[in-house]
Amino acid sequence: MPTGYNGKILRVNLTSGAIREETPEEIVYRTYMGGSALSSYYLLKEQKAGVDPLGPENKLLFMSSVISGAPLMGLTRYTVAARSPLTGAFGEAEAGGFFGPELKMAGFDGVIVEGRSAKPVYLWIKDGRAEIRDASKIWGKDTGEAEKLIREELGDNRIRVAQCGPAGEKRVRYACVVNELKHANGRTGMGAVMGSKNLRAIAARGTQRVPLANPEKVQEIGKKALELLSQSGMAQNLKKFGTPMFVMPLQNSGILPTRNFQKGQFEGAEAICGEKMTETILVKSEGCYACAVQCKRSVKVDGKYKASPEYGGPEYETIASLGSYCGIDNLAAIAQGNEMCNRYGLDTISVGVCIAFAMELVEKGILTAKDTDGIDLRFGNTDAMLAMIGKIARREGFGDVLAEGVQRAARKIGKGAEKYAMHIKGQELPMHDPRGKQGLSLSYATSPTGADHIEAPHDTSFLTDGPALKAAKPAGVMEPVPAMEMGPRKVRQFVHTQAIWNSFNSLGVCNFAYTAIPLVTLAEAVEAITGWNTSLYELMELGERTVTMARMFNMREGLSKKDDYLPERLYETLEAGTPREKKITREDFANTLKLYYGAMGWDPETGVPTEGRLSFLGLDWLIPKK
Amino acid sequence: MPTGYNGKILRVNLTSGAIREETPEEIVYRTYMGGSALSSYYLLKEQKAGVDPLGPENKLLFMSSVISGAPLMGLTRYTVAARSPLTGAFGEAEAGGFFGPELKMAGFDGVIVEGRSAKPVYLWIKDGRAEIRDASKIWGKDTGEAEKLIREELGDNRIRVAQCGPAGEKRVRYACVVNELKHANGRTGMGAVMGSKNLRAIAARGTQRVPLANPEKVQEIGKKALELLSQSGMAQNLKKFGTPMFVMPLQNSGILPTRNFQKGQFEGAEAICGEKMTETILVKSEGCYACAVQCKRSVKVDGKYKASPEYGGPEYETIASLGSYCGIDNLAAIAQGNEMCNRYGLDTISVGVCIAFAMELVEKGILTAKDTDGIDLRFGNTDAMLAMIGKIARREGFGDVLAEGVQRAARKIGKGAEKYAMHIKGQELPMHDPRGKQGLSLSYATSPTGADHIEAPHDTSFLTDGPALKAAKPAGVMEPVPAMEMGPRKVRQFVHTQAIWNSFNSLGVCNFAYTAIPLVTLAEAVEAITGWNTSLYELMELGERTVTMARMFNMREGLSKKDDYLPERLYETLEAGTPREKKITREDFANTLKLYYGAMGWDPETGVPTEGRLSFLGLDWLIPKK
Repeated sequence: MPTGYNGKILRVNLTSGAIREETPEEIVYRTYMGGSALSSYYLLKEQKAGVDPLGPENKLLFMSSVISGAPLMGLTRYTVAARSPLTGAFGEAEAGGFFGPELKMAGFDGVIVEGRSAKPVYLWIKDGRAEIRDASKIWGKDTGEAEKLIREELGDNRIRVAQCGPAGEKRVRYACVVNELKHANGRTGMGAVMGSKNLRAIAARGTQRVPLANPEKVQEIGKKALELLSQSGMAQNLKKFGTPMFVMPLQNSGILPTRNFQKGQFEGAEAICGEKMTETILVKSEGCYACAVQCKRSVKVDGKYKASPEYGGPEYETIASLGSYCGIDNLAAIAQGNEMCNRYGLDTISVGVCIAFAMELVEKGILTAKDTDGIDLRFGNTDAMLAMIGKIARREGFGDVLAEGVQRAARKIGKGAEKYAMHIKGQELPMHDPRGKQGLSLSYATSPTGADHIEAPHDTSFLTDGPALKAAKPAGVMEPVPAMEMGPRKVRQFVHTQAIWNSFNSLGVCNFAYTAIPLVTLAEAVEAITGWNTSLYELMELGERTVTMARMFNMREGLSKKDDYLPERLYETLEAGTPREKKITREDFANTLKLYYGAMGWDPETGVPTEGRLSFLGLDWLIPKK
Repeated sequence: MPTGYNGKILRVNLTSGAIREETPEEIVYRTYMGGSALSSYYLLKEQKAGVDPLGPENKLLFMSSVISGAPLMGLTRYTVAARSPLTGAFGEAEAGGFFGPELKMAGFDGVIVEGRSAKPVYLWIKDGRAEIRDASKIWGKDTGEAEKLIREELGDNRIRVAQCGPAGEKRVRYACVVNELKHANGRTGMGAVMGSKNLRAIAARGTQRVPLANPEKVQEIGKKALELLSQSGMAQNLKKFGTPMFVMPLQNSGILPTRNFQKGQFEGAEAICGEKMTETILVKSEGCYACAVQCKRSVKVDGKYKASPEYGGPEYETIASLGSYCGIDNLAAIAQGNEMCNRYGLDTISVGVCIAFAMELVEKGILTAKDTDGIDLRFGNTDAMLAMIGKIARREGFGDVLAEGVQRAARKIGKGAEKYAMHIKGQELPMHDPRGKQGLSLSYATSPTGADHIEAPHDTSFLTDGPALKAAKPAGVMEPVPAMEMGPRKVRQFVHTQAIWNSFNSLGVCNFAYTAIPLVTLAEAVEAITGWNTSLYELMELGERTVTMARMFNMREGLSKKDDYLPERLYETLEAGTPREKKITREDFANTLKLYYGAMGWDPETGVPTEGRLSFLGLDWLIPKK
């Protein structure tokens, strides 16, 4: 069996037009592997602190990983990273779909984009070659038109396109990057960074097979994975209902985010749930490269509201953010809103949170229709919600205010608006209420990217000896910890599962597939693909390294313990579901945060990684010079 | 495949004579697994701080592990643990041989001995039953006679006997526990604790097979291990020359401890090396339960000096401690000294260090023959060395002074003797010089049991991409670090390898076998034997837990950062070998120690484990109450 890993990174300077290929040493690949960690490696090594996130000095990275592109399900995600224009902190978002594997098959593990083009361009990568091409014809076009024009221009319908949309061009601070019109690197505004560089798209096409150290073993793992998925109830449900399957369980537990986190239950939940979607507007289930789960939705709506299947369909996050969170129970309208976000290239979570924020300000009398360009932004006003999406994307009128994100918008509006701005570090909260699954309070508060739901598994899945716990046992999570518990046991569970999910963020692994496939099998897959004699231990350490590198990036950008907080509203008691009263006390949160810092090998008082723990992780190059 | 692990612990109170069986919850087994960690679990849970190590309140534990007794090589070691009479700290020593597996086959994972018997007794365990029996007939007898008498009395020659010897009866502070007359739980004076309880021996006989969750997989692993060992150069050399194979490489590198660490080369090294032993006095190679390596020596000497094969033969540590360290180049005499230690039940390392200490005091004029009962304790005086072994074991005259260990002896002698007492935390230094393999400075200084060479692999083995490094790669040690380097990279290597070896100390795994067998295979063995869905990650965490628990025990006993030090002599330059000058600076040591604390998730300034890291390890029950 051959050992060793050789990969290539493409470096593109849009200011000078220079394109070059780099071959990192194997130890770099083995230490950082890809995605989040390999991105922060470059940002920490090469980028000085304090650059304007929307200026030419901010580097934008597209990173797959050492295992991406192998013919195995669940290894599809890739990362887009840069300093975030939304948070000023580490910006990073993963997306599934097909772009990551295509980039690998085109010969590159990643692309580092530097500088800013004088005019709109796109990057064309084909089988080891790259070219910067004029994009003036597609600038301003929605994502669907742009993708079509690129494929036509290059004469290949199998080209995979990752692009920012018009919202990215307009530097909406939570503009996303989208591939295949429906797989979004959603969060932290990576689309705005792309837009700021006048880089509208990266088009990739690869006809090379990704080399495998042990193809027989890869095949064997693939068979085993397929068998396990076919036995997994969760995988079956995901195929049937997609992530919207979570609407009703959360509603029933009383933690379906409703009306800007004022409530945990929504009277219209059944109208927007996964079962309803499957009954009514679902055209088919779809999936990512090489995956049998097919959890993605493709929906069609044709009536007052419209949505076409090529833009996919709303995930749970979108159903909640544009639905219950805005008090809207119209699934067709939500589907249209989802399509609009995918056309414009907007993060559906931040969009929904921004709109609901404005709706609560209207409810509280802080804003009136005068402030909102005459749009009647009451909770539940479907047309107002859809209208605002367009205005945000185009930065029109009040849309220009909300395009800055709730933190900046609240500051601009004043009059106590900040109280209603649901964000951490400037990033809008995802559609999960930490009061009812309290591990999320750590997830949200400490995530280097700001409030994030892909930092660690949400702890309801650990309440019983369910698949998530079963999968996590060999990674040291041995006992279920009640969702409503804070303190030492929760910290133990969180730090372990955070390491798991962060290794996923660096390896490009799907969080769903790997609740059904054992983590040890993932380590075997890494070994079979790369030829490295590796183990789950190494992957767990990669996860910790991923978290710690992002924190070091943030410290360099001036963030500190003060930025690990919960919005005030989350200290209010949430009343719904069982138990009836859900509450996180300030004391519990402060104590648990301190335990978390210590558990990570960070100073318990300041949250600063110790020089010793940096050494442990092979990150001694990040020890500040004295 | 059945899952779950059921085991039994035998609890024996020698004061009351009560014997009872306990069945710990599975989570206790999974968290602590056996050996060191399971022992400190009981000591921390049940024993209050500050008990007299030689009083009835000190509990004495004999612990195998969840994998001991399986028909696989390298899983043979078991632990004896208690508060140490030598250090006042965590006392623990592992031994190979046959006793651990026999205890398992007799139905028990471990024995907790409490109280003190009014008269000499031994414990007889046979197939799930236990009985306290009179030992007056064997009290005072050497180990060989005692073993013979017990086997005769019980009428079974296959009984395995773990015992303290006459030295333990006399509470020599570094008396050991010995099984099969030659496998010693050598360090920290566990034999003295046994003697203080009037417990001369535990005799075990088991005819039950240890249950295996997946016998086919166990068999498959066994075959694979055998194949790997047959290809391993190190295993072949160990079979041929035993651990004495290390004499000449250390001599050539200039780090063979000589004359109380005054030198790193010994003019008589060739006369006492492994090759010489194999040529001259070796009768046969022997091994532990189920092992094909056969690294143990069985020697015969008949002339002026005598040694018989049933007491085995000297390991490297003994050859150095009674040889070069005392300036003695007579292999036959060393073999006799080794046999004497095994007959009396004395730790050969501490014995040699105590005698050489006295020899240097004589050299420096601090002691004269008047102080040493007329024995001429000059370096190189073979007969003086042998005479002192007997006097120490019997606590006769000056032997009674040295029987207290170098720390206490130096205090008693005064006149600046402490400068020559080579110990850390009261335990005598093993036969490896940290100045030439500097990772050992961390090993020695921070080992919870005092200076110890089984805390982490000695870093010469990592200089090249050799078997030890290859084995450690999946555990996160990816690059060789020069032996003479301190600082971040050394800390990274040390903390990882310390976790590996400490997981061995809890699982009862042989450090030699598992340089040839991959660590991932060990995790598979644990899974196949116990039925747990586990991984190398879990074993690495067990290793960290093992270290941290012992530190928590020590903190409770009043130890702190001040006890993590090097003897002054080790800051002197050692001149020999290549490089010619070997030196650890105080500054390097202090900085590296601080990095180590941080790397472990301990306070970098105080070395106290943070509450967060205790939580991470599932040790929140050890967070001090406020």
